[in-house]
Amino acid sequence: MSMPSHQTKKPLLSAGERSARRGSANLSRGTESGAGTTQVVTSSSRMRLAVQAAKTSGKTIGFVPTMGALHRGHLSLVEASLSQCDQTVVSIFVNPTQFGPDEDVGRYPRTLDRDLRLLEELCCPWVFAPSASEMYGAQFDTSIDVGPVAEPFEGAMRPTHFQGVATVVLKLFQIVPANHAYFGQKDYQQSLVVKQLARDLSVPIDIHVQKIVREEDGLACSSRNAFLSPAERVRARSLWQSLQLAEQMVAAGEKSADKIIGQMREQLARCENVEVEYIAFLEEGTVCEVTTVDRRTVVVIAARFGQTRLIDNHIIG
Amino acid sequence: MSMPSHQTKKPLLSAGERSARRGSANLSRGTESGAGTTQVVTSSSRMRLAVQAAKTSGKTIGFVPTMGALHRGHLSLVEASLSQCDQTVVSIFVNPTQFGPDEDVGRYPRTLDRDLRLLEELCCPWVFAPSASEMYGAQFDTSIDVGPVAEPFEGAMRPTHFQGVATVVLKLFQIVPANHAYFGQKDYQQSLVVKQLARDLSVPIDIHVQKIVREEDGLACSSRNAFLSPAERVRARSLWQSLQLAEQMVAAGEKSADKIIGQMREQLARCENVEVEYIAFLEEGTVCEVTTVDRRTVVVIAARFGQTRLIDNHIIG
Repeated sequence: MSMPSHQTKKPLLSAGERSARRGSANLSRGTESGAGTTQVVTSSSRMRLAVQAAKTSGKTIGFVPTMGALHRGHLSLVEASLSQCDQTVVSIFVNPTQFGPDEDVGRYPRTLDRDLRLLEELCCPWVFAPSASEMYGAQFDTSIDVGPVAEPFEGAMRPTHFQGVATVVLKLFQIVPANHAYFGQKDYQQSLVVKQLARDLSVPIDIHVQKIVREEDGLACSSRNAFLSPAERVRARSLWQSLQLAEQMVAAGEKSADKIIGQMREQLARCENVEVEYIAFLEEGTVCEVTTVDRRTVVVIAARFGQTRLIDNHIIG
Repeated sequence: MSMPSHQTKKPLLSAGERSARRGSANLSRGTESGAGTTQVVTSSSRMRLAVQAAKTSGKTIGFVPTMGALHRGHLSLVEASLSQCDQTVVSIFVNPTQFGPDEDVGRYPRTLDRDLRLLEELCCPWVFAPSASEMYGAQFDTSIDVGPVAEPFEGAMRPTHFQGVATVVLKLFQIVPANHAYFGQKDYQQSLVVKQLARDLSVPIDIHVQKIVREEDGLACSSRNAFLSPAERVRARSLWQSLQLAEQMVAAGEKSADKIIGQMREQLARCENVEVEYIAFLEEGTVCEVTTVDRRTVVVIAARFGQTRLIDNHIIG
């Protein structure tokens, strides 16, 4: 099942797909036994042993780290891993260290039962769902800083965010020593942080970045969309509309990033109660801003809709 | 071959030991082929593949990270690994990032040919000797901070030192995914940093800390001893003498760390040109200072002898 970037909304899996994929009806949730389709493991050492055993028997392992509240974007990562690897591990862990002091980790949506059902429908063999105390013992003190790539944009708006991300991802990579790991393009800067982390620290896991999955009206799938009021949800379309405007202007021959950003801001200003945090044109694969759009460029945007902060991006040129 | 803490100076291996241990006369230095006794690998990916292949075939791997200029302290770590593991990897890499701006990485002793001969004599199967560019590409930006355990003492005297250590050790652990790694008690605080790193980041390598190996007159073996002038070398005995004084005072019933430190400082002051940087009594396994010596306590000391900074420690109580 491929997930094109602009896919229209539909049930996550059809009934036919479900019955075809489902090897076993029961999910051995929380038992850590091997009876069901999807095994849920909460212990780091058991998770690592399972992965190591599979690797020793010659299997390739794909890994999809998530904070749960799974949507079609996450599921496209799981699909990619399932299609490319012999075994797939999805982790579900709402990592407290990547939330800032003004961000409420307790408010982040938690839908574990639904998440596990969705992964069972995909016949995902392993879910790693550790507790916070399993991940962070009382004496935990370590943090990883990947340098300049983590500083602007999301790093500037959320100063400790990427240290939390880099640290938990490196730790998860030690617990799930996979061959491949899958991240979403929606979190563009995060994907650069993870690539920098893996390259600098010689982590032997290939990092794959999968296309953004969008709702029917173009809004990028995000767990945070659940926080939007109906009115905010309508206004949130403006993010994708402004990215489309940028694409159209470049297609029409405009090369000045400043001019395009000006037009995007004007269009967004016509939408009530949208507080733009940043818009920038970046050289693909970097956080370096470009002034002239004469090659593939990533347009990144962040905006607040009431209490909810959304990010999006689009590759143009 | 055990290496007691106060071992007297002797040839590194006797002629008989050498011939018994040597499986093959030739060291395949720099070839990365499998012909000789000790294989020298400079490529990270080849090193990892060799370790993974050995692990897949059921072998346990021991790892001894060093900066070369090997002395009997290092060799005792290699001996421990050789006796406890099926295969041993010694890395030789003078890590530039753990030297401060006022410390001359270029001055650190480099004796690769001699180091390789010594490891060949021990029949060490693998040496990982990467170049600086193999370890740190042009875009390298990542650093790891293990928190409070790295802050006082050596961390205060050498502010970026332990970040450099933690980062390179984590990276080496990814390249050499061993079962066991061996470090020396002489670098007591470093051993705590490495343990914190491995525990916090869930690195599946058991950290072993081996006893200090001393010269005949008690000076702890250190690559930096080579920098001492003959007169400084004589004065450097005072470190061990002061640690022995602490032990004697505790054996005689003294429990006040302050009183013992006062006596140690008085004794050191009688020795010309010794600049004491710190003396402290620490709860074993921590960098927490104790005032009363009523359990096992690590006495740590750092002092300058001319341009050369030496550290030592001793467990008492």
